[in-house]
Amino acid sequence: MAAEPGAATVSEAGPGSGPGRGRDGGLFVSFEGGDGAGKSTQLRRLAERLRAAGREVVATREPGGAPGAEQIRALVLEGEAGRWSPVSELLLFNAARRDHAERVIVPALARGAVVLCDRFADSTRVYQGAARDAGVGGLPGPSPEMAEALHALVIGIEPDATLIFDLDPEIALSRGVARGGEELRFERLGLAFHQSVRARFRALAERAPARCRLIDASGGAEAVAARVDAALAPLLEPA
Amino acid sequence: MAAEPGAATVSEAGPGSGPGRGRDGGLFVSFEGGDGAGKSTQLRRLAERLRAAGREVVATREPGGAPGAEQIRALVLEGEAGRWSPVSELLLFNAARRDHAERVIVPALARGAVVLCDRFADSTRVYQGAARDAGVGGLPGPSPEMAEALHALVIGIEPDATLIFDLDPEIALSRGVARGGEELRFERLGLAFHQSVRARFRALAERAPARCRLIDASGGAEAVAARVDAALAPLLEPA
Repeated sequence: MAAEPGAATVSEAGPGSGPGRGRDGGLFVSFEGGDGAGKSTQLRRLAERLRAAGREVVATREPGGAPGAEQIRALVLEGEAGRWSPVSELLLFNAARRDHAERVIVPALARGAVVLCDRFADSTRVYQGAARDAGVGGLPGPSPEMAEALHALVIGIEPDATLIFDLDPEIALSRGVARGGEELRFERLGLAFHQSVRARFRALAERAPARCRLIDASGGAEAVAARVDAALAPLLEPA
Repeated sequence: MAAEPGAATVSEAGPGSGPGRGRDGGLFVSFEGGDGAGKSTQLRRLAERLRAAGREVVATREPGGAPGAEQIRALVLEGEAGRWSPVSELLLFNAARRDHAERVIVPALARGAVVLCDRFADSTRVYQGAARDAGVGGLPGPSPEMAEALHALVIGIEPDATLIFDLDPEIALSRGVARGGEELRFERLGLAFHQSVRARFRALAERAPARCRLIDASGGAEAVAARVDAALAPLLEPA
């Protein structure tokens, strides 16, 4: 976890600041990627493996993860589309993230826990941060630069490592149907949207290679779990 | 209404951009000051006078003033003290302000209305923006500079004129008791707090003299209304 270096760049902070490497043994890992790529399943499995190995694990998620942040989550995710403008939504996501970071993530890291977080700032970069318009009546419009500057101003921290679960959206959709889960929402957004989300996560991984690891999320859960272990092994060795 | 020139300065934008002076006749006036100084009463009276003179008036308030912003207001103002950290609260106030500005203020100004707003960004500067600490675990702490930079980043507009209602808190308290209103909350915060709020509003008026007018809020409502009229007369003359 390191300070964001500045606006409009994605932090490169990463594995070098891992367990026993300057933060009293705490480790902050975010799980990112499109819907249906299996990141929540992999997060639960990794949490079980680490707990079995004797580590304190805090498994959490965004938006939400703390009582106040969950109330903001409800404001953002419930209700009709277009209820919030892109900039209002960006502010609400950052308010929830600040509450979550302050109340849950930072205290857990300070006591040496491993924090596994289902989505963090990269999801905001990919979903909310992609909007751009000129604004109206003197109000600045949303832009990737605004999203990055806001993160630097009020959050300022990045995970030690970010696993980006990468999967063809058509496979993700077929998994969603199999789960009987959120496939209606997924289908409504359309394949082109999910393909663009995938491309933006891949671009983000290229921009921050020291922090981000692209995880091939195809194949069975066991195979993907092995890839997760391999990606995190350098960070999870005993200090 | 003009773009905020930069972080950590209070905008001087003001009367020069008034009605018929570059914004199709719209005029944005904020009413600021401590509790009990009579600004809400004066806002209602001014709205009545302007409507009687044939102007379209949008009388609104912050936090809130739009359906989404009112829901954020409820999140911020309900619940126990300490529920939100200073930075989370700052983000929620700005999320509500952005929603209000986008959905209510800017459209009203675009159609030439007079917008009278009970509290705007100066209240955030005085109440939330006064907090300062070093932050923890890599998270930046709150500061007046953060509050100003956030305003510049996501709001960027200022009123054409700001009336700062200035009153000795002991007189404000006696008025509050007379109204049977919010005197319990007022008393609980303590006289020293209210004196500090008054001093901060006065300092703000000194830093932005072109935009801010200090209104002596002592005496009867008629006398204060005459001071409001005098302060706004240059802005409300027929173009």
